[in-house]
Amino acid sequence: MKRRSFLKGATVAGVAGAATSTFPAPAISQGLRQWRMVTTWPKNFPGLGTGAELLAKFIDKGSEGKLKIEVFGAGQLVKPFDSLDAVIAGEVEMGHGTPYYWRNKIPAIAFLSAYPYGMTAQEQNGWIQYGGGQQLAEEMYSELGCKYFLSGNTGVQMGGWFNKEINSLNDYRGLKMRIPGLGGEVIKAAGAETINLPASEVLNALESGAIDATEWVGPYNDLALGLYKKAKYYYYPGWHEPGTTLDNFINLREWERLPSDVKAVVEAANVAVNQLVLSEFVARNNAALKTLVGKHGVILKQFPESVLASFSTLSDKVVNDLASNDQRSRRVLDNILTYRTEAVAWTSLSETTFTAARFLYSYNKA
Amino acid sequence: MKRRSFLKGATVAGVAGAATSTFPAPAISQGLRQWRMVTTWPKNFPGLGTGAELLAKFIDKGSEGKLKIEVFGAGQLVKPFDSLDAVIAGEVEMGHGTPYYWRNKIPAIAFLSAYPYGMTAQEQNGWIQYGGGQQLAEEMYSELGCKYFLSGNTGVQMGGWFNKEINSLNDYRGLKMRIPGLGGEVIKAAGAETINLPASEVLNALESGAIDATEWVGPYNDLALGLYKKAKYYYYPGWHEPGTTLDNFINLREWERLPSDVKAVVEAANVAVNQLVLSEFVARNNAALKTLVGKHGVILKQFPESVLASFSTLSDKVVNDLASNDQRSRRVLDNILTYRTEAVAWTSLSETTFTAARFLYSYNKA
Repeated sequence: MKRRSFLKGATVAGVAGAATSTFPAPAISQGLRQWRMVTTWPKNFPGLGTGAELLAKFIDKGSEGKLKIEVFGAGQLVKPFDSLDAVIAGEVEMGHGTPYYWRNKIPAIAFLSAYPYGMTAQEQNGWIQYGGGQQLAEEMYSELGCKYFLSGNTGVQMGGWFNKEINSLNDYRGLKMRIPGLGGEVIKAAGAETINLPASEVLNALESGAIDATEWVGPYNDLALGLYKKAKYYYYPGWHEPGTTLDNFINLREWERLPSDVKAVVEAANVAVNQLVLSEFVARNNAALKTLVGKHGVILKQFPESVLASFSTLSDKVVNDLASNDQRSRRVLDNILTYRTEAVAWTSLSETTFTAARFLYSYNKA
Repeated sequence: MKRRSFLKGATVAGVAGAATSTFPAPAISQGLRQWRMVTTWPKNFPGLGTGAELLAKFIDKGSEGKLKIEVFGAGQLVKPFDSLDAVIAGEVEMGHGTPYYWRNKIPAIAFLSAYPYGMTAQEQNGWIQYGGGQQLAEEMYSELGCKYFLSGNTGVQMGGWFNKEINSLNDYRGLKMRIPGLGGEVIKAAGAETINLPASEVLNALESGAIDATEWVGPYNDLALGLYKKAKYYYYPGWHEPGTTLDNFINLREWERLPSDVKAVVEAANVAVNQLVLSEFVARNNAALKTLVGKHGVILKQFPESVLASFSTLSDKVVNDLASNDQRSRRVLDNILTYRTEAVAWTSLSETTFTAARFLYSYNKA
């Protein structure tokens, strides 16, 4: 396999290998390391980019500066979707994104992000941390020459931005939509054309007519991207991504060179960021939604049940077709289904009955 | 205020102050510290005690042994509910429990744990981490001479263990029930007698008839406590504790003596543990519930809607009475309600509509 440079332009010269590192050997010999993290998000993008910054900060402070990490927004060093390749090639040490961006390398990796009608953030975390997901993830990422960490969650996403009402599955026929991962495969099965675009390109693509519709994450993120400027209808729920996880991937050789205390800091920092990213979305989404509707005239709509039912049938087919054609996908899906049956039963009995009962209550009336 | 020793017996002599520390000064002068963490949980108790162990492990590994923490189960050094006093007095450096255990010191502190018809784990995390809760918590704990960290969450709890069916609020009249916090106040308002007992005493109290009913946490925990041996009916949902948080409290002087890198490790470790404890419960509860029902003949029942509605009215009254009589409770409740309105609206639109739509789906049928 030809090793190519993913780094853009002369301003970032001298980073293509250890031999031309800009960081002096003496610092490393004192146990100090300076790494670079490329991300698939715009620099400091709410929740996602801020999550990457938080990760770097926790690691810097926790390691007493033994590992300093400079965070680069999408496109600053490499194109967003080249982030994993840059880490694999050792051009940078670390990256932050979401697994389904890498499914062209290993199809089953998409299940780590989210999958249609799959699991909520809480359930997905339980699977990765206590249900076998971490082991499967490490197996896949290590084949790519990377160490994997779970590193953030968006919670249930929104269903997407459209310029027409969605009344039946027919409204997806011929639609050009930005939607990645297994959700994209389902939309394709409904007759749409799909494309994956990084955050920075979505609004332009809507504007130019390259796409008719898009999903991104949810109100807090989507307001920041300005998607309301070019699409009017905002649909929920995000059946295709009910709890999308982010990933932190580290060049495996660089990871193995870290002393064990710094490794422990990186591990704890990732779990902490995984928690904090979700909390930021939970705390900020509704205010953003009110701004979208109240200030920007967005029309908020729930998908009709018939559309959700049709997508559920297609999701079944898409996921099972993938599992039938790819042994690893079969193994990952089987692992998920065993866990998921239990987790969904517990959610139904606990969160679902509680949140239903809560509407009997009226703190605000008192 | 008389400073008393909470430490039991001669086996733990010599720990009441720095002057009699069992850890040699040279170690401290090399920047090495050995602390002790008392907990309100039995040693290695599933989810709760294992959370405390995980916290100690992350801190030890992340600080490269600069801060080693020995974890003591409930009663090993001090009585469970004396844990905070032991930390305040400086007899030990750190503790792990849940805020409402300390509401006799500051009533408003109970809101930090959970409150009737309040918030799910995800919402409660959002409030503490991004909604103003951390600042209010630090204000209260620092008045007690402690540093506060959020350090675990049980998720939605179960409603409790009973020896009779609960058909109306009258069934609570005269009932002696173990139930702490604001939920206990609601039960009291329904005519029950309530008591708070630590984990280690609950089964004995049921056995001796000191109590007729109890709640603890949920299936994974309650199976470990053996509560099914002395109560037959297991009710859900836990309207009184929809997302109970744990706390890590540190003697403020000891905290302030920590170097900044160790402080950062402690902070990240607590957020990580907060996440992992919840994941452990999410991943384990349903299997435990199946064991309780299938193997131990437990009768699983949902509270009738009329009972949930009555408790919602009483909860309103209890929480608002507390806020009317206590300025700090007023301030904390007002802060919560501002945040909660947004968070609940978001949950309803996202998680609730998704989990409802999910039942259209059938991975397992395929």
